Amino acid sequence: MKMAGIAKSSEGWHWTPSGGLVAGIPSKGVIQPSQNIKQSDAVFDVIVIGAGYTGLTATRDLTTSGVKTLLLEGRDRIGGRTWSSNIDGYPYEMGGTWVHWFQPHVYRELSRYGMINELVHSTDFTKKHNYFSFATRSGRRTMSHEEEDEMFSRAMQKFVNVDGNFGKTVMPFPFDAYWNKNVLKYANLSVADRIAQIRHDLSEDERHAIESFVLLCSGGTAQNSAFLDFLRWWAAGNYDYRTLLDTIIVFKLKCGQSEFARRFFNEALATSNLAYSFNTVISRVDSTNNTVRVTTRDGRAFQAKRVICTAPLNVLSKIAFNPPLLAEKTEASKLKHVNQCVKVHAEIKDPEMRSWSGVTYPDNKLVIGLADGKTPAGYTHCVFFGCDANHIHAEENIDETLKAVKKFAPMDVNRLVFHNWSKDEFAEGAW
Amino acid sequence: MKMAGIAKSSEGWHWTPSGGLVAGIPSKGVIQPSQNIKQSDAVFDVIVIGAGYTGLTATRDLTTSGVKTLLLEGRDRIGGRTWSSNIDGYPYEMGGTWVHWFQPHVYRELSRYGMINELVHSTDFTKKHNYFSFATRSGRRTMSHEEEDEMFSRAMQKFVNVDGNFGKTVMPFPFDAYWNKNVLKYANLSVADRIAQIRHDLSEDERHAIESFVLLCSGGTAQNSAFLDFLRWWAAGNYDYRTLLDTIIVFKLKCGQSEFARRFFNEALATSNLAYSFNTVISRVDSTNNTVRVTTRDGRAFQAKRVICTAPLNVLSKIAFNPPLLAEKTEASKLKHVNQCVKVHAEIKDPEMRSWSGVTYPDNKLVIGLADGKTPAGYTHCVFFGCDANHIHAEENIDETLKAVKKFAPMDVNRLVFHNWSKDEFAEGAW
Repeated sequence: MKMAGIAKSSEGWHWTPSGGLVAGIPSKGVIQPSQNIKQSDAVFDVIVIGAGYTGLTATRDLTTSGVKTLLLEGRDRIGGRTWSSNIDGYPYEMGGTWVHWFQPHVYRELSRYGMINELVHSTDFTKKHNYFSFATRSGRRTMSHEEEDEMFSRAMQKFVNVDGNFGKTVMPFPFDAYWNKNVLKYANLSVADRIAQIRHDLSEDERHAIESFVLLCSGGTAQNSAFLDFLRWWAAGNYDYRTLLDTIIVFKLKCGQSEFARRFFNEALATSNLAYSFNTVISRVDSTNNTVRVTTRDGRAFQAKRVICTAPLNVLSKIAFNPPLLAEKTEASKLKHVNQCVKVHAEIKDPEMRSWSGVTYPDNKLVIGLADGKTPAGYTHCVFFGCDANHIHAEENIDETLKAVKKFAPMDVNRLVFHNWSKDEFAEGAW
Repeated sequence: MKMAGIAKSSEGWHWTPSGGLVAGIPSKGVIQPSQNIKQSDAVFDVIVIGAGYTGLTATRDLTTSGVKTLLLEGRDRIGGRTWSSNIDGYPYEMGGTWVHWFQPHVYRELSRYGMINELVHSTDFTKKHNYFSFATRSGRRTMSHEEEDEMFSRAMQKFVNVDGNFGKTVMPFPFDAYWNKNVLKYANLSVADRIAQIRHDLSEDERHAIESFVLLCSGGTAQNSAFLDFLRWWAAGNYDYRTLLDTIIVFKLKCGQSEFARRFFNEALATSNLAYSFNTVISRVDSTNNTVRVTTRDGRAFQAKRVICTAPLNVLSKIAFNPPLLAEKTEASKLKHVNQCVKVHAEIKDPEMRSWSGVTYPDNKLVIGLADGKTPAGYTHCVFFGCDANHIHAEENIDETLKAVKKFAPMDVNRLVFHNWSKDEFAEGAW
């Protein structure tokens, strides 16, 4: 499994029938050597905490502007909740995957690095198993992808249509979600609440379609997921199911997200303004007299004039800030976002599965699956998503995980690859 | 008309019934003083030619990266083919206007400058004249905006559907238009050719809808506009008429594009790495021995290690390059793009027109009109587009221009504002 020149991360899981379950997978995101700090680097201009895309972008922009920057990261790799394997040269995406020219911030960076001609389709609709399988308590059926889209589109339109304008009136700007203050009357409406409001207008199939799709987005449960959180996804997809699908689940990077993340890191490194240290977990941030002192869990300390902290919401409260963060921010971090998405990749021996997608809901441990690529062996790569409802830790019981995958359709599974975001100490949840 | 602190550009035209036609309009894009070069600025790191968004972005990125930059611009203002008036504090957009989160490069910059909550709708569909007027050789009719969208959507789908997949198969990536080499078989197909191919499947109304909409995009004629050029617009709007409309003609900046452009310029200026000179027309660029010498039409010369030339295609061949540019580039500049868009703003006394749009085609000098805002006086601002077919120079005969406006609907016109891009020596055409 080891690739020449590609180091293995301690993160992620890899299972094969012959090799069993192995912790850690190789990735271009692993940085070696793991630190480059010189003794002369006494006080930095800026310390950036976290090497996900936010931290990498800040680091790149600072270092290319001549600012002496120290990047500190708890993991052994860059990319945060977006990173790809390099197994036989093939990228399975452990977290954030799909890109589109309708994702403005990501696309600008792809364009900047000359990578816009490296997009590929996850699914290829020219193969034999060109259908959608839908398994609910009413049984298992197959339909065409056109029928699938029509059903999901119809159901989602009912779900979002609180204003007679499919959400466009109450949330005209996805990136400025509270622009219309009337939207706040839905602030406490859960996905389950909204479904209850429209239950008389929904077939059972439509209700299952809504729940499976919304939970794919939120990673939570129908009870703890906010209606408005989904409405932001919907608005970002221009208030249309097919446009939303195109925006979030069609195109990915042939080279993998970790290669993309390397572009940011390498550009920063080339400036000579970048010091970095991986495997460096932050425990304290003390700010006094124009100096910030950042202390690590193992007792090291670094100083800078400023700090940019990009720690994810669900782990922000694990860092002690002095003076403390805004009370609202600390409270939000302790409440946490609900996304406990389970994402499992399977290599399937049948190449004709490249055209397939499916839902098994509500009685399976994984909810949505779709073809996501062709592996170097010529097999089909499918990806499966679960959520906090019926949650599993995929590595704890591989037989259970395999069973959940095979519940979608008959599949000869040759490999599983995944990252358990819920047990990840630097994320405590997904994206 | 003069605004405190807002200088008047020599560009643009302004007509009122009482004041008549006046050359020049005030704009936040005018830079005063017009140059800031010091004697000590002997050799720059980089000279940027042109202060449109491309040149401004390059200048901003260079100066914030510590690069000593000289920005040279032929006009008295920044923004190139995108600039706004400041008439009684109100921005009429002379060129590029509409933005959306589906325009990745622009939206990233709006986000960077904290301006995403400054978007406003051009049209307000809550007023009395909430209809579309369609005047063709078959007469003048009105229809609802839903009927308008349905007709245009149906017609445009027929127009683009060369592959049975509404163009998505032959051009899957708008920003990488020739990714599928099969697309090249349409390289010589004109808009007129494509309409001829499908003429038996088109009603007269559908044909007029196609021609008016495509000419709005191309600014040319049906004969000289390329089918593939329109297909790029279509692909960028995700192969759907309504999505395309949302992307290109719904949201604009409340503060005007010139205020947006100022953000780039001001950020660059704040670095102290920016020297600039407006009213500075470039005639020659000579590159030898790692030095570039840029000569102006009035005989001044500037030196730098590198030059970035952002002169528009249609005027690039007016600059003598030594060594010469690639032959293909020079040839393209001499052939020119076809966009000779005529864009005329009218202030209309009736506030109920704020919900209106219309087409008059093929016998009017202006083709498409729509409500574009509410003026400080409480009147409606409508914008009208013409093209190279039936082309006019709007300032040459104001009565003819007014007549073309009034052909759309009865209108009490209080003001006209426009820029004649075809006579513009620094553009020789529109965007």
